Amino acid sequence: MNTSEYRVTILGSGSAQPNINTFHSAQLLQMAGRHFLIDAGEGVQIRLKQYHQNLFGITNIFISHLHGDHCFGLIGLISTLGLMDRTAPLYIHANPDLERLLTPLIKFFCTDAHFEVCFENYSPYKSAEIFSTPTLTVTTIPLKHRVPTCGFLFKEKTKLRHINRRMTDAFNVPIAMMNKLKNGEDFITPDGEVIKNERLTTAPSHSYSYAYISDTAYHERIIPIIEGCDCLYHEATYLESDTLRIAKTEHSSAKQAATIAKLANAKKLIIGHHSSRYNTAKPFLEEAKQVFENTFTAVDGKTFYLQE
Amino acid sequence: MNTSEYRVTILGSGSAQPNINTFHSAQLLQMAGRHFLIDAGEGVQIRLKQYHQNLFGITNIFISHLHGDHCFGLIGLISTLGLMDRTAPLYIHANPDLERLLTPLIKFFCTDAHFEVCFENYSPYKSAEIFSTPTLTVTTIPLKHRVPTCGFLFKEKTKLRHINRRMTDAFNVPIAMMNKLKNGEDFITPDGEVIKNERLTTAPSHSYSYAYISDTAYHERIIPIIEGCDCLYHEATYLESDTLRIAKTEHSSAKQAATIAKLANAKKLIIGHHSSRYNTAKPFLEEAKQVFENTFTAVDGKTFYLQE
Repeated sequence: MNTSEYRVTILGSGSAQPNINTFHSAQLLQMAGRHFLIDAGEGVQIRLKQYHQNLFGITNIFISHLHGDHCFGLIGLISTLGLMDRTAPLYIHANPDLERLLTPLIKFFCTDAHFEVCFENYSPYKSAEIFSTPTLTVTTIPLKHRVPTCGFLFKEKTKLRHINRRMTDAFNVPIAMMNKLKNGEDFITPDGEVIKNERLTTAPSHSYSYAYISDTAYHERIIPIIEGCDCLYHEATYLESDTLRIAKTEHSSAKQAATIAKLANAKKLIIGHHSSRYNTAKPFLEEAKQVFENTFTAVDGKTFYLQE
Repeated sequence: MNTSEYRVTILGSGSAQPNINTFHSAQLLQMAGRHFLIDAGEGVQIRLKQYHQNLFGITNIFISHLHGDHCFGLIGLISTLGLMDRTAPLYIHANPDLERLLTPLIKFFCTDAHFEVCFENYSPYKSAEIFSTPTLTVTTIPLKHRVPTCGFLFKEKTKLRHINRRMTDAFNVPIAMMNKLKNGEDFITPDGEVIKNERLTTAPSHSYSYAYISDTAYHERIIPIIEGCDCLYHEATYLESDTLRIAKTEHSSAKQAATIAKLANAKKLIIGHHSSRYNTAKPFLEEAKQVFENTFTAVDGKTFYLQE
């Protein structure tokens, strides 16, 4: 697989008040050959087109919580996919309330749609694996916000070990054995000698992971779940000096986001969802970098590569 | 009143497939000191901010029909007005189904809102005056589309006549009589002589009118209602050559829109809602101008002045 396929494109980086530069929260994650939409703020279909992303490629949508700035774009996207003659089912992973709220709208407005919208409801109260493919899993990360909210960890499964061709030739390992070797099995020669797997293979390629944390107060309980992730998106609605607002709204400061990244040994941090009280991301980036140097700010249209 | 206040700003000019240049249908009409939103496609709140329009000034929203591209922006706008601490009620004039569909969303998502959303349901099947102020009326215009649809005629009431000061001085008309003169009454002198109103006043200023026609097949029945309007917006989804699509979708061609403008003696025509099959408005404008010269194309962000 081309490693450039491990990437997340910011479709909306804004907080409560959207404008033409910062749409509401939405991200497109391309990972292990799949296209996942994470949150779907108003206008997400416009952003997808603007950034030349393939709407049809999206198989699953993960909604972190039911505040409007994270899901008002769903009905427009579903409606447009219907007009575009999509036939493949679309899976929406969300708090059960979304199915109740969205179903009447889909029935009324999307009568032309010839595909099924499948709600895969998850409980926002405990971490659980809610989706998997042969190559990756998606796990919920319960957060601490004013309404039930979950982040998501997208994590590739451990990959197959690489055959050390020189060694397998030396031990005359038959072709039929290769898949077993890739899966970690030892080789037993016709003479009954056990050749340890580590002598015949090398370690698998890196399994990438992406953690999406939005919206939340500072919440150290998430750290064991996201430990060592390649890229962490963590909301940073305020600066550390906005003490009262942080407490009242259950959002995080840039410093808090960076602290989580540091404690979780994340390789890279993206911060976003900055309050519209600030018209520049600069102070957020400066505050975060004091704690975690490898920090970047989410900008609508920007693509981050997990492997960089 | 400053005549520049008679204007309509295009917030969204696109048809079914929105993109960054053409959001879904929405217009802001400023007329007789009021701000009216006509239709509310997805992202209308973003457009209002982008074009520096005052979200708070909007008192009434008129929804032509319940296709998503004309109303999916409502919930986001209402939610944002709630966050902005609006207190004045917001009136939504629409087909009754909208109240049923939108109310659960407002209750769930807009818990912070401290203003009332008042649904003023209208029947889409007969033309009726659905709103009035001391200076204007709004009348529905039943259209011919796949779902119940109405256009709207915004029309100033007849204004007061202008006092001819030279003549009222000559006849010694008392100050207390002036309002009656403005309303058209004759003046009777102390000697019992009747002085005809036309000798003491001049004609009132022009009463402006704006007609919004979206979406519809060619429909001559609307002509008596919009007769002589200062500005007519009429959808023009297709070109005349798109015969089958026009018939199937119950939309109009540019030529048909221009024909309606001509037969209704409109002073100016704006066409929009062009199919995304065309990536330029040029052929639409050319086709319309062959029938009605004073035609313009709707472009997101463009403001048209009714008096020009």
